[in-house]
Amino acid sequence: MDINEKSLQKHYEWKGKIETKCRVDVSSREALMEAYTPGVAAPCLEISKDVDKSFLLTRRWNTVPVITDGTAVLGLGDIGPEAGMPVMEGKCALFKAYGDVDAFPICIKSKDTEEIIQTIKLISGSFGGINLEDISAPRCFEIETRLKEELGIPVFHDDQHGTAIVIAAALLNALKIVKKDIGEIHVVVNGAGAAGIAIARFLLGFGVKHLISCDRFGILVEGDPQLNPAQAELAKITNRQHKKGLLKDAMVGADVFIGVSVGNVVSKEMVASMGDKPILFPCANPIPEINPVDAKEAGAYIVGTGSSQYPNQINNVLVFPGLFRGALDVRAKTVNLEMMKAASIGIAGCVSDEELSPDYILPYAYDKKAHETVAKEVAKAARDSGVARL
Amino acid sequence: MDINEKSLQKHYEWKGKIETKCRVDVSSREALMEAYTPGVAAPCLEISKDVDKSFLLTRRWNTVPVITDGTAVLGLGDIGPEAGMPVMEGKCALFKAYGDVDAFPICIKSKDTEEIIQTIKLISGSFGGINLEDISAPRCFEIETRLKEELGIPVFHDDQHGTAIVIAAALLNALKIVKKDIGEIHVVVNGAGAAGIAIARFLLGFGVKHLISCDRFGILVEGDPQLNPAQAELAKITNRQHKKGLLKDAMVGADVFIGVSVGNVVSKEMVASMGDKPILFPCANPIPEINPVDAKEAGAYIVGTGSSQYPNQINNVLVFPGLFRGALDVRAKTVNLEMMKAASIGIAGCVSDEELSPDYILPYAYDKKAHETVAKEVAKAARDSGVARL
Repeated sequence: MDINEKSLQKHYEWKGKIETKCRVDVSSREALMEAYTPGVAAPCLEISKDVDKSFLLTRRWNTVPVITDGTAVLGLGDIGPEAGMPVMEGKCALFKAYGDVDAFPICIKSKDTEEIIQTIKLISGSFGGINLEDISAPRCFEIETRLKEELGIPVFHDDQHGTAIVIAAALLNALKIVKKDIGEIHVVVNGAGAAGIAIARFLLGFGVKHLISCDRFGILVEGDPQLNPAQAELAKITNRQHKKGLLKDAMVGADVFIGVSVGNVVSKEMVASMGDKPILFPCANPIPEINPVDAKEAGAYIVGTGSSQYPNQINNVLVFPGLFRGALDVRAKTVNLEMMKAASIGIAGCVSDEELSPDYILPYAYDKKAHETVAKEVAKAARDSGVARL
Repeated sequence: MDINEKSLQKHYEWKGKIETKCRVDVSSREALMEAYTPGVAAPCLEISKDVDKSFLLTRRWNTVPVITDGTAVLGLGDIGPEAGMPVMEGKCALFKAYGDVDAFPICIKSKDTEEIIQTIKLISGSFGGINLEDISAPRCFEIETRLKEELGIPVFHDDQHGTAIVIAAALLNALKIVKKDIGEIHVVVNGAGAAGIAIARFLLGFGVKHLISCDRFGILVEGDPQLNPAQAELAKITNRQHKKGLLKDAMVGADVFIGVSVGNVVSKEMVASMGDKPILFPCANPIPEINPVDAKEAGAYIVGTGSSQYPNQINNVLVFPGLFRGALDVRAKTVNLEMMKAASIGIAGCVSDEELSPDYILPYAYDKKAHETVAKEVAKAARDSGVARL
C-alpha cells in the first residue's frame, strides 16, 4: 500500500486528527456553579471592563486558528475550502504536539480578498494569533498585510514566511559547510509566487546581496510589464545587474539554487553550470525541481528538498509551532523580521558543528528541542524588538 | 468568598476551560508522512471530489462552534463579544463533558445581522452544526432562520430552544404531579424576548391551547401597534380571547407561570390569584421573578427556577450536549420540532414515577444518563422525521 492509500485509510479510521479537551471539572452542582452559571458572570464582567483580560480569563492567549480558503493546498492548487481541512487539521495537531498551541482549523468559503479579511477580523476576538495557510498569491499578500495592520495580534502566513525561515536556516548551515559568506553568494530563487517572493525578501533581510528571482517566463527584471505587482516590487530590489534570460541563464555561476516552483525544471547541465560547491534546495512537492540523486551526480555539494525521502528535509513544521509558542508566550503584538530571523538562527543552531554535514544541515521536524529553541529565541527577539506585551 | 469571587479566581487559575487535543501520532518521520505531508494529499483530493467526505475524513462530523456577538450574555446584556467568551468556553466544556461534542468558542465583532449571517456561512464548512448563543432579539430570529434555510447542517439558538425544551420537560413532569391535561391548562409566559417567544411557540406545538404572553407593557394582544414584529406574530396565535391588561391580570386563574424576564415582578398576591395547585417557573437570572420560598408561602405547588440554589433547577445544560450529540450522530440536516419535542420528552422521562415529586421534576444537569437519553431520542426523531443522513 503506498503512502497515499495508507494515509487515506488512516484518515477514515481517525475520524479527525484533533478534538476538544475539557480542562475543568463540570461533574457536580458546585463545579458547574464555578465554571458556568452563575459564577461565570464574574470573568465576563471583568473582560467587559478591559478586553485585554480575555487573554487571562479564557483560552484566547493560547489559541490560533489555522485559516485557509483552499485555493493553494499543498501542490494541489485550488481544491476548495473543505478539501483543505485535512491539511489544516494536520497543522493543528503539529501545533499542539510541538508547540502546545491550541490550534483550530477554519476554512473560509470565499475567494474574495475583502471578504476573507473581514471574516477573519470579525472572529479575531476569539484568538491570540492568526495562522494563514494555503491561500493563493497575490491575495495572500494583501490579506496578511491588512490583517497585520488592523489586528494587534501575531498574523503569520506560513506558506510565505514559514518556508522562508526554514530555508534561511538550511542556507545558514549549508554556508558554514562550504565556507562562503552570505553577503558574497549568488542566489537564484525559482518560483515567484507567495513562497518564492517571501524567501527572496527574507534572504535579502539576512544579508544576501546577489539574488535573482525567476518564474515560468524566466528572470524577473525591473520594468518588465509582464510582472504582477508583487513581482514588480521584488524586481526593484533583486537582480541589480538587470540580467535577462531564462532560469538556466540565471543559474550560471550561482552558489545557491532555491526552488519553490514545479518538478523537473532543473537539468543536470544547469547544476553543472553553477559555481563551486553548489547548494541546491529544490523544494517543489511532491516532485522536486531536480531529483537529489541527479543533482549530486551533476556536482551539487549540498541538497535539501521538501520530502522526507531524502536527507535534509526542509519542512516548515520546524517553524510554526515554536514561532507561535514564542509569540504567544510574550503576547507579541505582531510577528516582525527580528522574530523571524531569530527563528532561522535558532533552527540552524540546533545542529552542532560536530553534527553538521552535507547530509545533515537541519534538525528533524520531530525534534522537540528544536521547537523549544525556536520558541525561546522568538520570544526573546519579540522582547528585544519591543513588540512583546509581557 | 462568594461564588463570583471564587469563579473569577478559578478562571485566572484555569487560563481557559478547554484546549485542543491531538488525536494522532506525529512523533516520527513515518507518522508525519501519514498525518501530514505527503500522505494528507489523499484525503484532500477525496474531499475535493465529494465535499460530503469532509464529514468522514476530518473532525467536522463532531465539531460545533458556540457563536456569540456578546449582545445578550447571561443577565448581563450587551457586554461585547470578547466578554461573552467565558460563557462560550463554559458551554464548550459542557458540550464535551456531557455530549462528547468537540465545541469551539467563536465571538463575532459585529452587531449587524447580515454581517453575522455572512460570517457564519463563510466559516460553516469547518463544522457539523452551529450553536448560536447569547445573541439579542430580534436579530437572533433572523440569524437563526436564515442560517437554517441556507446551511444544510443543524443550527440551534440555545437561548431560544434550549430554554423552551427544558421548560417543556419540567412542565410535562409537573403536570403529571398535579394531574392536569396539557390541552386544558392556562399558561402565562412573562417576557416576550427570544426565550419567551420560543417557549410560547414550543408549548403551543406541545398541545397547550390557552397561553398568554406578557412583556414589560403587559399582555400581548393581536393588533397592538407597540408590539415588535416577532411579538406581533406571536400575538396572532396566543391569547385568543384577546384579553388585555397587565401581568397580574393574566395570572388570575392561571395554572402555570413561566418567567424569563426580570427579578421580583411577581408578588405573593399574584400567586395567590392563580388556579388550583399552581406551577411556577420563575427563571430570571440571577434573581427570579419571585423567590421560591415566597411563591410556596403564597400557595405555589411546584416551583422551578434557573438557579441551582433551589430544587428543580431548569437549566438548558440538560439540552444542548445531548441534542447536538444526537443530531451529529445521524448527520441531521436540521434541528426540527420533532427532534426538540423528543428532547423534552426524553428529559422528562429520566425522572421515574417513583422519584417524581414537587421538589424533583427534572434530572440534574450533571446526570450523564439524561444526556445520553436526549441524544438517543433526538437521533431517533431525526430519523423518524426524515432529516437524518445516516
